[in-house]
Amino acid sequence: MSMTRADKVATLRALHVPGDPLVLPNIWDAASARIVESAGFPVVATGSAAIAPVLGYADGEGTPAGEMMAAVARIASAVGVPVTADVERGYGLAPGELVERLCATGAVGCNLEDSDPVTGAMIDAGEQADFLAGVRAAATASDSDLVVNARVDSFLHGSGTPEERLADAIERGRRYLSAGADCVYPIFVTDPGLIRTLVEELGAPVNVLFRPGVPSIAELAELGVARVSFGHGLHAATQDFTARMVAAIKSGRSPYPPQEA
Amino acid sequence: MSMTRADKVATLRALHVPGDPLVLPNIWDAASARIVESAGFPVVATGSAAIAPVLGYADGEGTPAGEMMAAVARIASAVGVPVTADVERGYGLAPGELVERLCATGAVGCNLEDSDPVTGAMIDAGEQADFLAGVRAAATASDSDLVVNARVDSFLHGSGTPEERLADAIERGRRYLSAGADCVYPIFVTDPGLIRTLVEELGAPVNVLFRPGVPSIAELAELGVARVSFGHGLHAATQDFTARMVAAIKSGRSPYPPQEA
Repeated sequence: MSMTRADKVATLRALHVPGDPLVLPNIWDAASARIVESAGFPVVATGSAAIAPVLGYADGEGTPAGEMMAAVARIASAVGVPVTADVERGYGLAPGELVERLCATGAVGCNLEDSDPVTGAMIDAGEQADFLAGVRAAATASDSDLVVNARVDSFLHGSGTPEERLADAIERGRRYLSAGADCVYPIFVTDPGLIRTLVEELGAPVNVLFRPGVPSIAELAELGVARVSFGHGLHAATQDFTARMVAAIKSGRSPYPPQEA
Repeated sequence: MSMTRADKVATLRALHVPGDPLVLPNIWDAASARIVESAGFPVVATGSAAIAPVLGYADGEGTPAGEMMAAVARIASAVGVPVTADVERGYGLAPGELVERLCATGAVGCNLEDSDPVTGAMIDAGEQADFLAGVRAAATASDSDLVVNARVDSFLHGSGTPEERLADAIERGRRYLSAGADCVYPIFVTDPGLIRTLVEELGAPVNVLFRPGVPSIAELAELGVARVSFGHGLHAATQDFTARMVAAIKSGRSPYPPQEA
């Protein structure tokens, strides 16, 4: 029996458990989405920095909103589990239209970031809180509940000392939670002490980006993290793998392992 | 300076040299297309059996024509080199519409197969020759020249002894060349003797699918082959690679190599 939209929203939201994180190997197309579902993951998450080059566009909202939404819809149609979509800063869509178009794809959650996709400049915290409140209000008004993961870019695009960035991230996180976000995603935070402080100060689900240099998934769980994602990391590794096969062919060799040849 | 459509058609056609084959590591999206172009290949070829799952559909024309054409268009927009598109049996489109829609994607060549995409039954050779002649006539009439690679499925879906399949493939190949095909693609032929006979009997460009068990690219060149392609092989290998990373994450491990972690 397939899940209703309400079931999917509830399932996705309930999986954000501090200390027992929802793990999301972010994918980029229907085929990779099916790999994640087949491996037994309860949720599929898209990665916009992977989908953009797959569609031929640059990261940073180089992808037209319609093409990104169509890609998300193909992914959501391919799997039975809840799908959460990385939609960058929302492609300039007003909250009402963003929610309507996201829901039309079949996705039940989204990431929204708080820096300018072109310049990287941090968006004013109040402005971003208003935007997130608008998204929450639109979701409520249209009876299209949505799990909102509010990205906080203080460690990526912020300025100042680590302590100043931490203070900015906590301040932003609190405002976004008050505006209706379900989870706070301080991307590029890697230090265990900073992660623990964020978890404690926010008192809400926190998402950490896994990449080389970050604590293990088990350590992130111990730190109280509620969500671990991979950004475009898996796609980047897959691209390298494909490039090595193509280079082998260019050298006149088989791209396949010797035992299969 | 970017190539005109006519330049691309001429370039693609001229690269079909018996004994010095055009090598095509078939791709499935804009990102993989750019990998092939960056590696120095002069042509990008799509693989329909890879694109179908990427879009969430089954191989064998499970993909709506419009979605396949849109995928080809994204790929053709992403690279500067000529693109040749695998369009299965043409999605039931009449030759005129098929040519028009193919050209609209920016592709300058195509593969067309001679078995039923659902049942696998071989199409009557005369019927397929008429279809290919229709494609050639439509391309000429619309001044949209197209390099046509006529797939011959005798070794995949045909019946009888190897000798009977060879005879069928030669008969079909000759009819398709007379109908205006530029190249003949007897998919799944692996035996060097059969390949040499096909090259000699057809006296025209022959495409061989590279897969484990097939002679090396250098050996295929010596046999007189003019085109070597990879079908969905690279995508299948990439999917396996992705699945191994996802399985590592499911086990709580890093998906990345230890030296990077």
